Amino acid sequence: MRIYLDCYPCFVRQAIEAARLTGADEAGQLAVLHCVLEALQHVEPGSTPPEMGGHIHRLIRAQTGNSDPYREVKARNTEEALAVYPRLKQLVSKATDPFDRALRLAIAGNIIDCGVSGEYDLWTSIERVLGQRWGIDDSGPLKEALKSAPLALYLADNAGETVFDRLLIEQLHPVPVTYAVKSGPVLNDATRQDALAAGLDRVAHVVSTGCDEPGTILERCSQEFRRLYDKAEVIIAKGQGNYETLSTGGKRLFFLLQVKCPVIARDIGVPTGSIVVKRG
Amino acid sequence: MRIYLDCYPCFVRQAIEAARLTGADEAGQLAVLHCVLEALQHVEPGSTPPEMGGHIHRLIRAQTGNSDPYREVKARNTEEALAVYPRLKQLVSKATDPFDRALRLAIAGNIIDCGVSGEYDLWTSIERVLGQRWGIDDSGPLKEALKSAPLALYLADNAGETVFDRLLIEQLHPVPVTYAVKSGPVLNDATRQDALAAGLDRVAHVVSTGCDEPGTILERCSQEFRRLYDKAEVIIAKGQGNYETLSTGGKRLFFLLQVKCPVIARDIGVPTGSIVVKRG
Repeated sequence: MRIYLDCYPCFVRQAIEAARLTGADEAGQLAVLHCVLEALQHVEPGSTPPEMGGHIHRLIRAQTGNSDPYREVKARNTEEALAVYPRLKQLVSKATDPFDRALRLAIAGNIIDCGVSGEYDLWTSIERVLGQRWGIDDSGPLKEALKSAPLALYLADNAGETVFDRLLIEQLHPVPVTYAVKSGPVLNDATRQDALAAGLDRVAHVVSTGCDEPGTILERCSQEFRRLYDKAEVIIAKGQGNYETLSTGGKRLFFLLQVKCPVIARDIGVPTGSIVVKRG
Repeated sequence: MRIYLDCYPCFVRQAIEAARLTGADEAGQLAVLHCVLEALQHVEPGSTPPEMGGHIHRLIRAQTGNSDPYREVKARNTEEALAVYPRLKQLVSKATDPFDRALRLAIAGNIIDCGVSGEYDLWTSIERVLGQRWGIDDSGPLKEALKSAPLALYLADNAGETVFDRLLIEQLHPVPVTYAVKSGPVLNDATRQDALAAGLDRVAHVVSTGCDEPGTILERCSQEFRRLYDKAEVIIAKGQGNYETLSTGGKRLFFLLQVKCPVIARDIGVPTGSIVVKRG
């Protein structure tokens, strides 16, 4: 999905929030903002929001000398999610359809997103998503595809959300899962460190995509990851960033997300706030 | 009130919306956006949001050759407000305290604002504001000040909102009211044409401030208006723009507004969504 004009205010907001998280004073924050306003005048035509997002967050890290502005936010989000994990695990085990419930919880966790505007309450999101009608429901085909899959590739999104992914991965048993995280910090996207903190190594083989943009930009991923991607028979892609970068993918792809911005809503064809399992 | 970093995403959003309203194609909209991103790198330190807003909207009008992008929006908002005017008039006449009700309605009409983000429903705003607790309530001092005032100066905000101002002005009788509008189009702020379309000339003496920024920037107002401002014993200043530009004014000033953005909320000290009558 290409960048729309409506993405620009969001990039500016993200830049300010990231600059604040680095602890820079107001002059430092303004310097970051100027740098991003300049960059926004040179957006590559046809590029995706995560490509530009990656570029902007790289600029911010370079400008402030802070290699991971979201480090504390990510640690806190992971802790908070781990704190509710036992309760969520129980919700899944008591469900008539544990797969459906785990799938919904994985999507509920997608509310943990510093890329979009507005505040959220994690437990409100969980309760909403558990009872919500699907905006797009390809959960049947996903379940079917998983039956015969020798392996599932799971593309992670954000730290904290990882704990919710873990719940779903546990339901995929006995299908082995490879969990792919970003190669380095960008926004609040999960890195290897964040995945390990959430215990993902207990349920999946954790690998890096080789790219540190807030999505999966195949041409910037490692050879090793590309091979994995090419041969995977089922790919679960979490969140808006993966949808934005992989929206031309094939039928092996299943996007799991909450639609959190009007630009994505228009592109995917369901209202903001919708929950989606969409086959590629 | 000075520009805060959080004002920047709002300026970018406004630029995109205004560019769209001019009917420019996407390339034209992008050209406007680039022009505004450039301007945002040169914000005068200490300047107020309406100063920058005025500058940005001047750039957009020059760039697109459209002298009033909000013309149709303003006409529609005025028509919609006039359509509910008889119903509102009845609400005031049936009230136990007609002054309080008219004051609340004038503030309810302040929801008509293209400067802030998000959609609104006019009637929802009316019903909410009629029953809402005041965020700041200096309505008593305002009523008291009006008792002995030989004249009230009323600083208008937006087109359509004008109709709600008319209801309040009718309750101020027999105090004569001078209603001050912008000297030319900027955002959806009311000009003389917009005020006349709303029938303000039937209840007040309509004058121009001499300035076409979305607020009242005294040093850019006409000599004639400045004299009027200096001698006025009661000044009713509608909306965020007037609050942002006149926030250092004296006790003659009464700000009437809905708090529609977090930056104003922080500055004025009440939550977003609050209704306010605040003495200067």
